[in-house]
Amino acid sequence: MPYRAPLADYRFLLGHVVGLDQVAATDRFAEATPETVEAILTEAGKLCEEVLAPLQRPGDMHPARLENGVVRTPPGYAEGYRAIAEGGWVGIAADPAHGGMGLPMAVTTAVNEMMSAACLSLQLNPLLTQGQIEALEHHASDELKALYLPKLISGEWSGTMNLTEPQAGSDVGAVRTRAEPLPDGTHAITGQKIYITWGDTDFNANVCHLVLARLPDAEPGTRGISLFLVPKFLPDADGNPGPRNAVSVVSLEEKLGLHGSPTAVMDYAEAKGWLVGAPHKGMAAMFTMMNNARLGVGAQGVGVAEAATQAAVAYAMERRQGGQGTIIGHADVRRMLAVMRAETFSARAIALACAVAIDMGRATGQAEWQARAALLTPIAKAYGTDVGIEVASMGVQVHGGTGFIEGTGAAQFLRDVRVTAIYEGTNGIQAMDLVGRKMMDGGEAAFRLLQEIEDAAETARHTRPELANDVWAATEALREATELLVGQEMQDRFAGAVPYLRAFARVLGAHYHLTAAVADPAREPLARVAIRRLLPEHAALLAQVREGAAGLYALSPEDLAA
Amino acid sequence: MPYRAPLADYRFLLGHVVGLDQVAATDRFAEATPETVEAILTEAGKLCEEVLAPLQRPGDMHPARLENGVVRTPPGYAEGYRAIAEGGWVGIAADPAHGGMGLPMAVTTAVNEMMSAACLSLQLNPLLTQGQIEALEHHASDELKALYLPKLISGEWSGTMNLTEPQAGSDVGAVRTRAEPLPDGTHAITGQKIYITWGDTDFNANVCHLVLARLPDAEPGTRGISLFLVPKFLPDADGNPGPRNAVSVVSLEEKLGLHGSPTAVMDYAEAKGWLVGAPHKGMAAMFTMMNNARLGVGAQGVGVAEAATQAAVAYAMERRQGGQGTIIGHADVRRMLAVMRAETFSARAIALACAVAIDMGRATGQAEWQARAALLTPIAKAYGTDVGIEVASMGVQVHGGTGFIEGTGAAQFLRDVRVTAIYEGTNGIQAMDLVGRKMMDGGEAAFRLLQEIEDAAETARHTRPELANDVWAATEALREATELLVGQEMQDRFAGAVPYLRAFARVLGAHYHLTAAVADPAREPLARVAIRRLLPEHAALLAQVREGAAGLYALSPEDLAA
Repeated sequence: MPYRAPLADYRFLLGHVVGLDQVAATDRFAEATPETVEAILTEAGKLCEEVLAPLQRPGDMHPARLENGVVRTPPGYAEGYRAIAEGGWVGIAADPAHGGMGLPMAVTTAVNEMMSAACLSLQLNPLLTQGQIEALEHHASDELKALYLPKLISGEWSGTMNLTEPQAGSDVGAVRTRAEPLPDGTHAITGQKIYITWGDTDFNANVCHLVLARLPDAEPGTRGISLFLVPKFLPDADGNPGPRNAVSVVSLEEKLGLHGSPTAVMDYAEAKGWLVGAPHKGMAAMFTMMNNARLGVGAQGVGVAEAATQAAVAYAMERRQGGQGTIIGHADVRRMLAVMRAETFSARAIALACAVAIDMGRATGQAEWQARAALLTPIAKAYGTDVGIEVASMGVQVHGGTGFIEGTGAAQFLRDVRVTAIYEGTNGIQAMDLVGRKMMDGGEAAFRLLQEIEDAAETARHTRPELANDVWAATEALREATELLVGQEMQDRFAGAVPYLRAFARVLGAHYHLTAAVADPAREPLARVAIRRLLPEHAALLAQVREGAAGLYALSPEDLAA
Repeated sequence: MPYRAPLADYRFLLGHVVGLDQVAATDRFAEATPETVEAILTEAGKLCEEVLAPLQRPGDMHPARLENGVVRTPPGYAEGYRAIAEGGWVGIAADPAHGGMGLPMAVTTAVNEMMSAACLSLQLNPLLTQGQIEALEHHASDELKALYLPKLISGEWSGTMNLTEPQAGSDVGAVRTRAEPLPDGTHAITGQKIYITWGDTDFNANVCHLVLARLPDAEPGTRGISLFLVPKFLPDADGNPGPRNAVSVVSLEEKLGLHGSPTAVMDYAEAKGWLVGAPHKGMAAMFTMMNNARLGVGAQGVGVAEAATQAAVAYAMERRQGGQGTIIGHADVRRMLAVMRAETFSARAIALACAVAIDMGRATGQAEWQARAALLTPIAKAYGTDVGIEVASMGVQVHGGTGFIEGTGAAQFLRDVRVTAIYEGTNGIQAMDLVGRKMMDGGEAAFRLLQEIEDAAETARHTRPELANDVWAATEALREATELLVGQEMQDRFAGAVPYLRAFARVLGAHYHLTAAVADPAREPLARVAIRRLLPEHAALLAQVREGAAGLYALSPEDLAA
């Protein structure tokens, strides 16, 4: 079953639910008119349907591999990548001054979602380049910008993020990679990095690594970390790749999924690197990159959920069992498909709402929009990827025995998407970010959002009383839990962080479904699934928030191991 | 981290929670004294820890393969299997008259769980043979019994189940395989079967296939199906395998997991078969086999959950991040591990309680015990396997990025266990069995069980008031939902079947945790996790039961595909 770009959903969500009109009303994004956005999404959708989706299975069957230190990518990936680059999709959100399209994140997010749905392994390459472009736009010197941005935005070169080291995992503060200043103002970077997505390719003329490392006078921990740009080939002043830098791929990982995407162990042996941003301020620069990458990863989850749902519906509509018609007539199959569709819609709406908040924060500079974006980012990342995994797993279930056979593709969605809950900060870290950093304001940004949801529910009461009441009551429960949470010790917050994030996403998803049903009665049946069947989970989740941490620490490691 | 057999948990559950003493008090199982059971479980545990667990990774890395029509199993499997057979573990529950140990299902279930935890791919072989032994014990002629049972029970030969055909999937009534009567009283079997687990081996002297097929005068549907025993080699009267029968392996499937277990497409070309049971009564015979196989599959899920939990705890206890100590100190990691441990305990208790009910039904012949066993079987299967998948997925999450790398083994648990929610009747089919066939009594068996749970909660109120109140209230809610459900149209029941089954499992799990906490205060912290954090989900699940089917059918296939 071929992938079909969900253009109608984007049109509806952007136009009637998450409010792209506000974005288009700003000076910065004045060009993002409905007509332009429609044309862009249509064009991207075509690329995804026709060029990228056919690369999904081959990339799984012919994994990227390392031959004599050179990465070989799966058949067709080079051509697929070229189509992405030539369409301008790498630089979709980038500054037009360096060749980017300068489009809002709301549009970028939809395009990234479609590319992820079509071929997640390949899409990771431009996604990471996008993050690098953003980091350089914000933190690099004008010289570096002029040299690198045009090549990255055109897709000629690609970008990677180098955070993790073998001993450090999610604890970036433990980074040991060293940066020694050289007389010419550059630095010699030495160390090993792991889990480097698209650490090398055979279709980019250069690969530019953003590497976290320590200067000689760095203090321990995250405040002693600096960011360096380390290209595979040292460019001359005109941007022509010159001599090879002392960076190499040691090995590629054998992974559960994403076989088409080379995940490298990288070695830096006095490789030449350029400082990006101020010394010791690498974490701040990296966070610029990671924040939007987090939304991008959330969109990956949504994309896989969409693709898995389409595949499952197609299978259920054609699969006959004996004389009983197709299995889409079975109540339990239909329940699974309805949940898959409803969850995909919720996760997509949250991702797009987060993107709109980012756009508004940038276009207006208003702190409220920036706080909204900061609040929604961890939810969009964690919920989007959780939905990706759950929907992909339900897709396997709908396929029955066929789902366990690799040729079907249903299992690949699950294998590929599983890591999205782990990379770019595990979903546990996202949840701790939500209840920790994002509640430093005493919950102000959260309460403001909840108030908007309750106001919308009040209005919806006139036309959809039953659904509106449910959403209103759940929002009240979330408000009470938030009041409790902001008074909790950090350890207690962390113990309930993942359930709290999910409860928040349940309420948000229900709100967007309700908004959709009010705007278009044809959307009401799906909204009923989300609100009557899925929303009630919030109460069970919030019960976990109230439990705090003590009960968990009453269990010793030995109790758990037994 | 090596697998450790959870003997203390079995001892506690059998002795203090699910009541193995009742079983040992019957004539039939009088030998199942605590001392004997302890000795047996210790011996089986040793086999699993020392011999089978080391085969887990090699079986994944060196999949079973087909060479010129001959199945080649992974390195070490032949020796591992021999150890299982020589220990008598294939025939653990079988009739001593033919060489079995005649032990209760409660003990068998624990042993099967351990073997599944250690090496699921290999364990499937004896599990299916156990099912075949049971079917033959109940339905085969004395001649067939005398010829086949000793060889199957000793493990010299293995057994398979052949239900599925390419066009039929879960709809067994659509079987097309033909059985033509031959003059000598045997039948010529012709047809193709798919998804045949351990369809062939290179370490069993004979492979005996139980095959569903149609006699020439069969009516359409499930009432026209007969069961045949079709051996790979035709045995002489003394049980020596003779000439090759016309059955062959066409191909092996490439699967998401269970790489060590050959899943075959089988071809029968006028193969010689012997009728088992009465003509056209194949489904009844097959159900004997399937019912206990379902409990066995539930135990597989528990086993993988146990192994995945142990691996995750071991990783969390040794994994340091920077200077912050090991990650088991992190609240969210501890939350995941606590949930994994609590869920594993719940699923294990349900499986063992189901096994005790089967034993009591057999030993006493009492309809109430038989109804209890029938009620618990689909719950034990579906919940055990759902827990296996969820816990394995959480295990990947605890491992972080390492979890996505295949060498760790965390991902293998998830890949291997995923199919357990599909085979032996998908978990959707289990749920429909629960709300359909198993509620044909108007819910009587369910209400009787719920009454026992409420009575236990009343008693527990004296010592554990808070936990007891929660369990009591949830049981009341389940009772009300059950009253509603038995009045629903079948389509509505089916629409809520999966959530209903899970809610029932939540209540059962909480009940067994409460019983555990009353029996041993050291068990209370884990019981609190199950009752305070996990049990509240029942309300959200029962909300779905109340929704019925109409809302699902308000969504057209096109709405779902969009």
